[in-house]
Amino acid sequence: MSNGSSSNNNNNNTARFDAARRVAIFGGTHGNEMSGVTLVNLWMQNSAEIQRKGLEIKPFITNPKAVEKCVRYVDTDLNRAFTQENLSATGGDELPYEVQRAQEINRMFGPKGSAEAYDVIFDLHNTTSNMGCTLILESSKDAFNLQMMNYIKKAFAPASCLVLLNEHPLLKYSTSRSVAKHPVGMEVGPQPQGVLRSNIFEAMRVILKHALDFISLFNEGMEFPPCTVEVFRVLERMDYPRDANGNIIAMVHPNLQDCDWEPLNPGDPMFQTFDGKTIHYQGSSTVYPTFINEAAYYEKQQAFVTTRRETLAASAIRKA
Amino acid sequence: MSNGSSSNNNNNNTARFDAARRVAIFGGTHGNEMSGVTLVNLWMQNSAEIQRKGLEIKPFITNPKAVEKCVRYVDTDLNRAFTQENLSATGGDELPYEVQRAQEINRMFGPKGSAEAYDVIFDLHNTTSNMGCTLILESSKDAFNLQMMNYIKKAFAPASCLVLLNEHPLLKYSTSRSVAKHPVGMEVGPQPQGVLRSNIFEAMRVILKHALDFISLFNEGMEFPPCTVEVFRVLERMDYPRDANGNIIAMVHPNLQDCDWEPLNPGDPMFQTFDGKTIHYQGSSTVYPTFINEAAYYEKQQAFVTTRRETLAASAIRKA
Repeated sequence: MSNGSSSNNNNNNTARFDAARRVAIFGGTHGNEMSGVTLVNLWMQNSAEIQRKGLEIKPFITNPKAVEKCVRYVDTDLNRAFTQENLSATGGDELPYEVQRAQEINRMFGPKGSAEAYDVIFDLHNTTSNMGCTLILESSKDAFNLQMMNYIKKAFAPASCLVLLNEHPLLKYSTSRSVAKHPVGMEVGPQPQGVLRSNIFEAMRVILKHALDFISLFNEGMEFPPCTVEVFRVLERMDYPRDANGNIIAMVHPNLQDCDWEPLNPGDPMFQTFDGKTIHYQGSSTVYPTFINEAAYYEKQQAFVTTRRETLAASAIRKA
Repeated sequence: MSNGSSSNNNNNNTARFDAARRVAIFGGTHGNEMSGVTLVNLWMQNSAEIQRKGLEIKPFITNPKAVEKCVRYVDTDLNRAFTQENLSATGGDELPYEVQRAQEINRMFGPKGSAEAYDVIFDLHNTTSNMGCTLILESSKDAFNLQMMNYIKKAFAPASCLVLLNEHPLLKYSTSRSVAKHPVGMEVGPQPQGVLRSNIFEAMRVILKHALDFISLFNEGMEFPPCTVEVFRVLERMDYPRDANGNIIAMVHPNLQDCDWEPLNPGDPMFQTFDGKTIHYQGSSTVYPTFINEAAYYEKQQAFVTTRRETLAASAIRKA
């Protein structure tokens, strides 16, 4: 489908972006997701590995109190706290810890939506789900990020790195990384909370290397031709089955457990009740579940999210 | 080796135990280990599945505050709190929550070490380690528990159920279950904290069924002939490598990760430092590591424990 843009009119279709000079790497947005916490702490001690010519790269622990306690958050989920309401809230020390922290991060790396905001923020996350290596994209229109993700996917092959598109008319996440012009989430699993697994740690490290390489090449003036990127667009949150009192009465079905990104067809087993009954998927078409049985989402009433496969086209990009 | 005890002198060598009339099933000793929490909550609503003739079986949530918060503990680890010092401590409401709770549990199910104590306590745990189904035995001399574990292992075959022997001259655990005459730990994994996996849940349920069946048969007068049980005896705690400030500088090596119960030989890779160096096992003989990379043991400075394989002999047992 991208054949329509021939090399003759590439210059017309090429999107121009300013050089990406200021880049932050966030770890510890959730204090018990250990790959990002560990990598960022390492890089704060010795940044040689992440230095790139002409780039100012800031590794940063976003939720130090949660890291210290090895919990997801202290008062409220920092990665949902970057709403305009929170960022403009008054109250100072009386505000929930993570709201104070969001304001501080917004001052340091934003303000969100402004010309002064950081160019790129990578936010490093782990999941207990069997998602493998996942990049999270917040806008299907962000050609810079689409090109970056295309670059990472190719550089990371033959290993697999998928793209989750969190662009939804109703589900708004207000993430820590949303402060930047180009927010990039990295979600690598499976890894239990509070555990550091060498395979997950190393995969995250390699993905981040490719991401920084891409930014370097872009800043040096390389033109990236039009491309297409396969993404999984978030459709719907699916809750666990519950009784009248709100108590969970079923588990993710063994046929679905660990099958993130695999097709779930109408009629497929989805949950298994504690007394052994199977609950089937009742949707009208095939979806691709992910974040299946993520520990942190029990409190968010979410057993998994469904997604739809799409192919997004990105224009060529070049430094302005 | 057990051929020496012929059937002729079985009666002489048969250990006699009182019928095991009072049995407790503990869940939520660690509030984020979801299989036990969920099973015990289910059985508190409907105990048909665990009822056995002539047995009083009490399913019990030991740490309800930790369960409510979905954390391991509130003030201190309940499963290390059953020391004589704690159990006799004065201070009432001023004591740490879990110490108060230990005293309460000791009053309900003990007192520990007394004739009034419950006969058997099963304590249901999960681990993030790849331990599969594990029974934890606190004394190599407890013929009743050895016979029970032998029965469970055979009933559970061809699936595997291993026995960890926590009997060590220095490492004392002071567990919740230690209140009973015959304490039995069940540890099933891998399962992340705060997550319920159907395979882990069902395995625990089946093991407990076999355990209760054994007690029923014993109470009905069945004699269990002498047997041998393979156990893994705890030897040593191994900490993560650390720098001078106490910070962890290495991860469990990928060759060791998930290899619980497999032989670790002198010279085998054990840790991998963050800058890529391999640290080898320096012991003088082969050991069998377990609890490898358990989330809850980072704070206990434990990357894994080493064990030694042993075969324990149990005498015949019969109801007195």
